[in-house]
Parts: sequence; structure tokens; C-alpha cells
Amino acid sequence: MQLGMIGLGRMGANIVRRLMRDGHDCVAFDNNPDSVKALVDEGATGADSLQDFVSKLSTPRVVWVMIPAGITGQVVDQVAELLEDGDIVIDGGNSNYRDDVRRARKLKEQGIHYVDIGTSGGVFGLERGYCLMVGGDDYAVGIIDPVLQTIAPGAGEVERTPGRTGDLAPEEKGYLHCGPSGAGHFVKMVHNGIEYGVMAAFAEGLNVLHNADAGTKQAEHSAEVAPMEEPEYYQFDIDTAKVAEVWRRGSVISSWLLDLTAAALQQNPNLDGLAGRVSDSGEGRWTVKAAVDLGVPAPVLAASLFERFASRDEDHFANQVLSAMRQQFGGHKELPAGDSLEAGGEKADHNN
Amino acid sequence: MQLGMIGLGRMGANIVRRLMRDGHDCVAFDNNPDSVKALVDEGATGADSLQDFVSKLSTPRVVWVMIPAGITGQVVDQVAELLEDGDIVIDGGNSNYRDDVRRARKLKEQGIHYVDIGTSGGVFGLERGYCLMVGGDDYAVGIIDPVLQTIAPGAGEVERTPGRTGDLAPEEKGYLHCGPSGAGHFVKMVHNGIEYGVMAAFAEGLNVLHNADAGTKQAEHSAEVAPMEEPEYYQFDIDTAKVAEVWRRGSVISSWLLDLTAAALQQNPNLDGLAGRVSDSGEGRWTVKAAVDLGVPAPVLAASLFERFASRDEDHFANQVLSAMRQQFGGHKELPAGDSLEAGGEKADHNN
Amino acid sequence: MQLGMIGLGRMGANIVRRLMRDGHDCVAFDNNPDSVKALVDEGATGADSLQDFVSKLSTPRVVWVMIPAGITGQVVDQVAELLEDGDIVIDGGNSNYRDDVRRARKLKEQGIHYVDIGTSGGVFGLERGYCLMVGGDDYAVGIIDPVLQTIAPGAGEVERTPGRTGDLAPEEKGYLHCGPSGAGHFVKMVHNGIEYGVMAAFAEGLNVLHNADAGTKQAEHSAEVAPMEEPEYYQFDIDTAKVAEVWRRGSVISSWLLDLTAAALQQNPNLDGLAGRVSDSGEGRWTVKAAVDLGVPAPVLAASLFERFASRDEDHFANQVLSAMRQQFGGHKELPAGDSLEAGGEKADHNN
Amino acid sequence: MQLGMIGLGRMGANIVRRLMRDGHDCVAFDNNPDSVKALVDEGATGADSLQDFVSKLSTPRVVWVMIPAGITGQVVDQVAELLEDGDIVIDGGNSNYRDDVRRARKLKEQGIHYVDIGTSGGVFGLERGYCLMVGGDDYAVGIIDPVLQTIAPGAGEVERTPGRTGDLAPEEKGYLHCGPSGAGHFVKMVHNGIEYGVMAAFAEGLNVLHNADAGTKQAEHSAEVAPMEEPEYYQFDIDTAKVAEVWRRGSVISSWLLDLTAAALQQNPNLDGLAGRVSDSGEGRWTVKAAVDLGVPAPVLAASLFERFASRDEDHFANQVLSAMRQQFGGHKELPAGDSLEAGGEKADHNN
Repeated sequence: MQLGMIGLGRMGANIVRRLMRDGHDCVAFDNNPDSVKALVDEGATGADSLQDFVSKLSTPRVVWVMIPAGITGQVVDQVAELLEDGDIVIDGGNSNYRDDVRRARKLKEQGIHYVDIGTSGGVFGLERGYCLMVGGDDYAVGIIDPVLQTIAPGAGEVERTPGRTGDLAPEEKGYLHCGPSGAGHFVKMVHNGIEYGVMAAFAEGLNVLHNADAGTKQAEHSAEVAPMEEPEYYQFDIDTAKVAEVWRRGSVISSWLLDLTAAALQQNPNLDGLAGRVSDSGEGRWTVKAAVDLGVPAPVLAASLFERFASRDEDHFANQVLSAMRQQFGGHKELPAGDSLEAGGEKADHNN
Repeated sequence: MQLGMIGLGRMGANIVRRLMRDGHDCVAFDNNPDSVKALVDEGATGADSLQDFVSKLSTPRVVWVMIPAGITGQVVDQVAELLEDGDIVIDGGNSNYRDDVRRARKLKEQGIHYVDIGTSGGVFGLERGYCLMVGGDDYAVGIIDPVLQTIAPGAGEVERTPGRTGDLAPEEKGYLHCGPSGAGHFVKMVHNGIEYGVMAAFAEGLNVLHNADAGTKQAEHSAEVAPMEEPEYYQFDIDTAKVAEVWRRGSVISSWLLDLTAAALQQNPNLDGLAGRVSDSGEGRWTVKAAVDLGVPAPVLAASLFERFASRDEDHFANQVLSAMRQQFGGHKELPAGDSLEAGGEKADHNN
Repeated sequence: MQLGMIGLGRMGANIVRRLMRDGHDCVAFDNNPDSVKALVDEGATGADSLQDFVSKLSTPRVVWVMIPAGITGQVVDQVAELLEDGDIVIDGGNSNYRDDVRRARKLKEQGIHYVDIGTSGGVFGLERGYCLMVGGDDYAVGIIDPVLQTIAPGAGEVERTPGRTGDLAPEEKGYLHCGPSGAGHFVKMVHNGIEYGVMAAFAEGLNVLHNADAGTKQAEHSAEVAPMEEPEYYQFDIDTAKVAEVWRRGSVISSWLLDLTAAALQQNPNLDGLAGRVSDSGEGRWTVKAAVDLGVPAPVLAASLFERFASRDEDHFANQVLSAMRQQFGGHKELPAGDSLEAGGEKADHNN
Repeated sequence: MQLGMIGLGRMGANIVRRLMRDGHDCVAFDNNPDSVKALVDEGATGADSLQDFVSKLSTPRVVWVMIPAGITGQVVDQVAELLEDGDIVIDGGNSNYRDDVRRARKLKEQGIHYVDIGTSGGVFGLERGYCLMVGGDDYAVGIIDPVLQTIAPGAGEVERTPGRTGDLAPEEKGYLHCGPSGAGHFVKMVHNGIEYGVMAAFAEGLNVLHNADAGTKQAEHSAEVAPMEEPEYYQFDIDTAKVAEVWRRGSVISSWLLDLTAAALQQNPNLDGLAGRVSDSGEGRWTVKAAVDLGVPAPVLAASLFERFASRDEDHFANQVLSAMRQQFGGHKELPAGDSLEAGGEKADHNN
């Protein structure tokens, strides 16, 4: 079938490529003409304006918008003005599902169907396919089914879940109609929330391993810095790259994120050059806010988000407040990094 | 080569089976004669006492102890009395690595080598092989290498990590000599700590999805129970079993734990009959304590552990204290489950 | 000066009483005529309708609305229709500061000034005074200053903060103009967020003390339930009521919340009859959402909120998921409350 | 009565002073002769060696050891060699209660009574008195009662807890016999664990207030850094020093720690010069480990401890791992501090 793609960044372009490989017709548009030309060279129909783009699509038009969430709304508005009753707009980016709910309602007044698709797969999606979480009405999702089948990974070599029989369900081929507009990005949001938690679990655990030799370094006693207890139990010099590798085979925490971790540590065992200032995109935040709204406890997901904030020093004022309080009640002085006070009778009261 | 196994529970027995399939000789002992007989029928040499067991092993003897951590110490002591200089004792159970450190030191005085092996793989290990994390001296780990190779999963179908070339390293075959005695169980401990975090991330995320329709149920305003904000955004009826399934294909959170989750939800979509009282074994606790000792932040790992405690109502007194405090400062009354107070002018002060 | 109060619940009525004691004139209205009559008996001017209420106020009218947050918006709208340019509406309830921002903007179009006041003090406020956090424009906050002075606690016996000299600042008398509309409830929101954290810290700590005798109860070994480590260190039978009492004197955690805790434990040392289902009002939730929006780490505040959710079993599906996963990978069976499995060779593999 | 003090740091010296003011006889010893001389000038009996010290005490001797936890054990051993049956050794420092349990058992063999006393009060204790949490046998605690009465704050101006009548109980005078040896430091340990949680709650909340103007600074959209949602709600320029001050009066979070916070912010409103590297002493760690041992959920106490670790960059390797993972799956590049990527079609896939 035919699909129009707006936004030819890596992900938009790769989806177009994956579609064309499977025989679909693609009309491609981007503000950057070079991006359009590159795909035209690979067989796509190019467009040099939104008007041109829309005019090259046959009805019911299927328009996939694949641009940053911050500008999706305005582009959807622009293209909607050129569309007509029965056409379909897909937001395949990282929009907040709340925007989907609002946009779908608004476009419905024009008779335009809005489909939100959360995609996961990163740079590997071109080859592996993208996991697709879809929200929208049955009519629109039905029409785009051939496209979803192509973009999704398919059953692949993933072992079938015990108990499933007969024809493969869509979710077994890597795409799922999750519910009405917004449901796709809602599920994707939670997916990313989980991802933050999983990543943090690995990162914290590897940090414990990385420091398992701290007992060999322990030196002085101090009332300010708690001395390590029983340093004889922390004498291990663990090779975290090898550990990540061995866990990939047969262990219950084997996973794609572990594969990536092993690859990263293989390339750069000491992670040299990484400052460890970890960005976050909206989904992790939205998941925590949704949990709060729903009254659902999510301490792990929240902790993993807050760790990212702290990695960027957003905890700075809080830490200053703590230091200031300690100075007030005990005459505590802050210690410079790595330093520790001499033990002495005069420190016995520093215990907070 | 020859290996003696003490403890023929499911895991010990399956390791024996896996070894025999690959041509190793096994001497098997368990307090339960039926367990011994079952393996003798499959080709093992049986023993009816520890003395008998030891006498059937050729030197240097290799004894694998596979019993609950709580009684491992005493069995190791018993068998050690029968062993001699150069023999090897393997603890393949779930001991605290601190016990390994102590036991290794003690056995060393007798010239006995102690090897601790953390294993992961659960009920699937017989077929798939077990991921092995090994601690001990080079001599002993060198001798048992053929056994480790057999028990481990091997390279299997796992894609090779980019950057790795040449012969497969042991960790690429599923076993790793992590360091001296204790290092194996230390790495296994952290493995399980991570596992708790990963499991909790999935559980919390799925709980958010499970409650995504809460906006359809919201009713009354009350000063005691916060009314849902913007219920129009929580109208989704998400099929968590299908979501778990779709995530298995192409998504960045695809993992073995997700496979298991999908299988569980496929069999029992509403998880009927599960009380949700989640046990914990020692490793999750030891990981948090190690993080505390090391001064390494582990909020996600700790939160996942505490959630398990809370699932068993270990938070009860704390919650009672909170209720009691609220009663003191605002005349708050506890609400029965699912209930909510009528709105009214007289409730405006209930805000804590 | 004159003030009109809408909403004569405990808090609204007590504010009126505190104002009248200090010589202010109050016009009182509530949907419940009995509430009005009670205050008229104490010297207030009663009103039997909003129209009547407004007509009894002299310009610029000062109207304090003290009703549940859920209905404040509609009552503010109703009264605003009867007010005129230069009048002042105060929301003294527990509104979300976002509603204040919106309402202030809307009322400003009519020339009406909107002031949001967060109040803290609970049932003790009538005698002690209420801590007031005020948002609004300088004009309006200036006019109501005499009222704020009366309602606030005043300097009282609180020791002056070192470094403060000269006349007492308003914040030293217990009220603070925090900023424009919304700032009052924003500060109150964070106040309550902190309160949740402080309460949780006490509740968790007291729970540790409450269970400090767990080592005397420990019995069996099991691979499912981690046996207590070193039970000899958990043999203390601590009287939490006495501990709360002693901490009130000289300790760095002495606080009003501790006073209340001590009172609660004195009255009911075992907290009998409290189910421990802890409600939450909006402020704790809003604080976490604000932290997420701001990118500020708030793991303690979030954890204290999530504990309340969990106390009401909102973690149930998550816990079921964990149990289901454990069954999948290890044949784990859930244990009934308080039960534990027999130790045995066949349990060595239950370690997740 | 007579008491001997070993360790004349600020806290030991102040306890001696407080005792002498109330008419007790004190024998004072410290490795630093200047410290001894200073107290002799104030009326104490000085000692120039442990032998001298012990010889100047009448039986049953009461020896208070007030030195850093790291060296308490060895000093207790030294002095114990000079003591005899019926004498009493008090550890008033910050020992781990586990050490108390062991030491008490060992000294008991010599007939020496061991009393552990947790003290809280910081630099204010000389004037205000110290909150005392006492562990030991009834005999020893009975003998030292006069000393405890003097050191403790007494009833002071703290309002009596409702329901308490008759003579003041010891806990109402600021000291409590909590149980056998170890119980005093156990309760003090939990006290400090709570303190960490309370401090963190304030620090996090003040950090939210400190950043409440972030909406005025928000600029670009980026797929790497989540843009602030609804910046119009984060336009507040809050004076945290004034807020801390106003909360001291009438609010439910009024507390000594808030008093100290207000003082710190009054002196240094921007907390200039504080790096925010927050130390921790053992008690916070031990509390979390005790909670883990007991199976008691303590997410708030643990989070407050981990925040301190993170403030000292102990999360560094974990954050590097997160950055490395993100680079693997999405080509994410770390952003330098304060930077943000330009929006663009090519960023739509950066969503993890």
C-alpha cells in the first residue's frame, strides 16, 4: 500500500526503507531537501512541500509524522488542513499520550482519523523491525495493518509463548492495537518507564561490582566518614565486562539491554570519557506522573528517574541544604572529595 | 571427568544429568535414598553414606554440594573431614559469599580447595545450561574446567558481542572465573539483586497499565482521598498479556524475564489465585547490605527489595503509625477499603 | 477589619472565631444553616444566601472561601459573579496551585483580586494560630494584612533565629507573602510533601524498633524465605511509646510530628484497631509531579507517597506479577502468611 | 556522685561540665594533656594516664568512654584490664550496637558491667542537655541514674504528652533505659536513621522550592532533554529562607531540624561555598542494614542514605553505565552540562 512519511530523520527514513523493501509505495517529505533526495534515490516519491506531499497521496491518505514531540502538534495541524474526511494521520514519534487524546478529538471533527504509534527498536529497527504499540479507532488501524505488519519485526526467532496456538496474533508479530487514540503512546510511555528501571537495576548492580575492591583501599577512621565495615569482605577485583558477557548466557537477567551493556563494556571497559550525565526524555517522567495520578506505587520507576536527575546535579541545592544543616547541629565541616578526618577524641560528637 | 554430587534436589539432579549426557562420571548422594536411586537408574554411581560417597571418588576428589544455604556449612564440614589435601569442594548453592570467604580460609588449612559457584537458570537449566559464576583459586578452577564447560550453556545462538574476536572466551560459553573464593557468589548475589530490580520495574509498569482505566471508575470528591486528576486521560482498558507479548519482539526491554511474564499472563491473564505475597531469598538482601557497606547508591535495588517486604505486610506497624499521626493532627479517620468520604464544608481542614 | 467566610467547617469556623476574638467583624455563610447559627451565637453576622452574604460586606469586599478543593472552583465562580472591581477572593483551602494560577487570571479580567492561602495547623490552629503561606498581588495582600496577623500564630515562644534582628518580619509572626497567585498553595504543597516524608521517616524507624525482637522468633530455614541473619542481634523488646517520648527532649529529631506520635502511642501503645490504610490528599502527589516537571530528584518524598499507596493495596497487581514470574522461572509457590517451607535438598534451586 | 570521663573532645568535655555544674565529681582523662588541664581549671580531677585515672575512682567505679567508635573497642579493653568486679564502663559514643552486645558479653566474664548510651543533642547539649538512650543491666543503670538525670535535659518547657499523669517518668526527663546492652545504641541508631530521612525530606522539598522558577528559564526543545511541561506553572521566585522561617510557627513540620535549617539559610541564603558533599556516619547505614535483616521496608530511610552517597559521586560508574547503554541503543550522545540539542527531524528516534 501507499504511505506518506513526514520527517526523514534516521528513524523516519529507516521506516520508509523497511516499507519499500517490502514493496510498499512511499511518499517522502522533510524540511531538509537532502534527506528527501536520499530516499528518492532509493525509490521513494519525493515531495518538496506539504501541499506537494498531500497531492501525491491517494485517498484515503495515510500520513505518518515522525518528528520530535515538541513540534509534532504544529505539523499535524498544518497537514490536517490539507487532508479530508477519511484520511489518516499517524504520529509515530514520542508524543505524550495526552496530546494524542486531544489531537484525535480535534481531528475527528474534520473526519480525520488519528493513530498514535509508539515504536521501540532504536538504531536496530531497520534490520530487526520495530515493536509497535498502536492507539486509534478500528477503521484506521484496520487500513494500516499491512504497513504495521511490514514495519514490525514479525515472529522472527522468538520462541512462541507456551499456551499460544493457531495463527499468530498481531502481538506475536510485533505490533498491537492497544486501544483508542492515546493508548499506543500510553503503552510506549510505560515501556520506557520500565526501561529506565531495568537500566538502573543493571547500572546499580554493576556499580556494586565495580566497587567490590573498596576494602583494599580503606584507610583511616573518622567520625565524619563512616569507616567501611569488615573490609575483608570487599577485596574482589571484578571484571564487569566479562560479568556482563557471562550473564548473557543462560541467566535469568539475559536481555537486550544486557547485550548492549556487554557491548559497551567490551568497547570501553572503564567507560573512559563518559561523564555520566544521563538525559531523560519525557516518557520516564510521564510514567511516574501517571503512576501518581493513578495511585499506583512505582518506587523503582521513580527512583530510576530521580537517579538520572541527580546524575545531572539537579540534587545540588538539596545536598547543600543537608551540609548546611549538619554544620548547624554539630559543627560538621564538609570534607573535600576523597578526604577524611583524623580520628581524635574531639570528634566523638560528630554523629549525624 | 568424575564429579561427586551431594544434594539431589531438582537442581543437583539436573546438573548430574547434564554432566552424564556429556560423558562425565557422577557419584551421587542424598539423604533421600529414592533420589539417589533415580539417578542410579539414569547411569550415576550411587552412594549410601558420605563415607561411601567419598570412597567412590578418585583423587583429587571433586565434590559439588548442592543443598540449601542454611545447612551447607555443616555438610561441608562433614565431608571435609573425609577429604584430603588437594581435594576440591564446590558449593553450588546460594550461600552468602561471606560464608565462602570463611570456609575457604578454614579448608585451606587442610589443603582442601574451596570453589563457590553461583548458578542461574532455574528449571530451564537442564536443557539450556546454567550460567556459572565461579570463585576460587586457579588450581581448583582449572581442574574443574571440563565440568564447567558442560554445565554452562555454551555459546548457543546468542549473537556474539561486537568487538569480540578469535576463540570464544569462557564467559562467552556461559561460565566465568570471577576471582578468589567468594567472588562467584558475590557476582551471583549482585545478579539476583539486579533481577529483583528488573522484576520490580516490569511489575510496577504492568500495574500502571492494569490501572489505566481508573478514570472510568472515579466518583466522589473527598478531602481524605485525593480525587483523580483529569480522569479523561485514564480511560484505557489495556490487555497486559498482549502487551507483554508484543514487547517480546523488537523492543529494547525484550528479555527472558519478559518472556516469563508473557507466559504467566498468557496462562492466567488476571493472575487469579495469586495472593501477591512475594518471598525473597538472601541475595537481594545481601546486595543491598553490600551497597550500603560500599557506599554505593542502590535506590532501585533497595526499593525492589522493600516492595517485597511490603507485599508481605511487613509495613503494617509503619502504616499504623501514619494513621495514628494523622488522627492526632487532623482528626482524620481511616477510611475502609474502597470507601470515600462525602464532600462537605467540614472537611476542608483534612489535608495532611 | 471585616471579612466574609464561606464554608464553616471546623477550620473555617475556627478562623472566624480567632478573628472575632481579636476584634474583627465576620460575615459567615455555609450551606448548612446550623453552622451559620452557631457562629452567629458567637458574634458573627450570618448570611442565608450568597447574595445576602455579599450584600453584607463593605467594599472592597474580602471573601475567604474555605471548602474542599473539589468544589472551590465552582463556588469561587458563583461568588465572583456577585463581586465587583477591587474586591478580594481568598481561597484558604487545599487547592492545587495550578487552579489558583488559572482562577487569578480569570478573575483579574473582572478586576477581582485572588489570593491563595495555604494553611497549616490542624485542629490546634484555633489556639495556636495557623501558619499561613500566601500568594497574590501586593495590593490584595496588603489589604488583608490585619487579618493575616490575627490568624497567624505570632512570634509566640519560638526562639528567634540567630542573625535576625530588629522588628519582627511577617514570616517571624507566622505568615509569608510567598509570591504571585499560586505561590501560597505551591509552598503549602511542598510543605505537605515534606510532611509526608517526615512522617514516613518516623513510621519506618519506629517499625524497625517495633520488630527489633524478631530474632527471638526466628525458626526454620527455607530456600523461599530468607532466614534472619545473626538473630542474636535482634533480641530487643523496645517500648516505642517511651522511645517517642524520650526523643522529645533534647534530640535533634524533636518536632511537632514527634509530639503527636508520642501522644498517639501513649493513648494506644499497640495501635490497636488501626488498619493502617493511609489516605493521601492531593498535595503529596502534586509535590512529586512538580519535582518530576522540574527535574528535581525527590526520592524520599516519592517513596513516602508510594508507601501510602501500598498501604491501601494499590501494589496488588504488581505483587501478583512478581509471584507469577517467580512461579515461571523456578517453580516457586507462594507461601501463605507466616508460613515457611521445610528445608530440604530439593529446594536448593529456589533462589530468585 | 563520681564519674570518670575518658575522651575530652567537645562532647566529653561538655558532659563533664554539665555534671560538675550539678555537683558531681569528675575525673578526666584524655591523650591530650591540654584537654585535661582545661577541665582541671574548671574543677575536675585530672589524670595523666589510664592507671592514674582508675586509681582516682572509688568503687564501684563508673567510667564513661567518649571517643570515636573506631577506637572505642581498644580503649575499653585497656581500661577493663584495670577495673574489677562490679565496676561499670559506659560507652557514650557512636558504637555499633553489635559491638556493645559483644563487649558486654566479654566484660561480663570479668564481672564488669557495660552500659551503652546513645546521645543526641549536638553542640547545644551543654546548655539544653542530651537526650540519652541507655542499654545495660538494671544494676548498672540504677547506679548511674543520678548522672543520667543530670546529663539529660529534664522536663524543661516541653508540653506534657496528653494522657501522662503523676510523677515524671525518666523518658519525660530525657533519658530512657531501652533494654539490655546494645539497646541504647540500637535506639540511637534508628534515631539517626530517622534523622537522615527527615533531613532529606526538608532538603528535597526546599530544592523543589528553589527551582520553582525553572519555567522562566526554559528554552529549546530537544529529543534528548525532556522539555519542561507547562512552564507557566513554574514561574515562582521563592525565598527559601523566609519559607523555612514561616514554617517554624504553627505548621505541622515545625521541628528542631527546621529551626537549624532556618538558621543556616538566614546566615547564608544561597548556601554559597557549600559543595554539597554530604558525609554519613555509621548509624544511617546500620539502620538500613537492620531493616533489611528484619525484613522491614525502609524505602525512605534508604533513599535518604543513598542520596548522601550520590552527593559524593558514588553513583558515578552507574551513571556512566547508563550513558553507555544509551549510546548503544540509540546513538545517544551525552550532553554537556546545561546544553541541549537543537530540535530536528533526525532526533525523533532518541527516546530512551
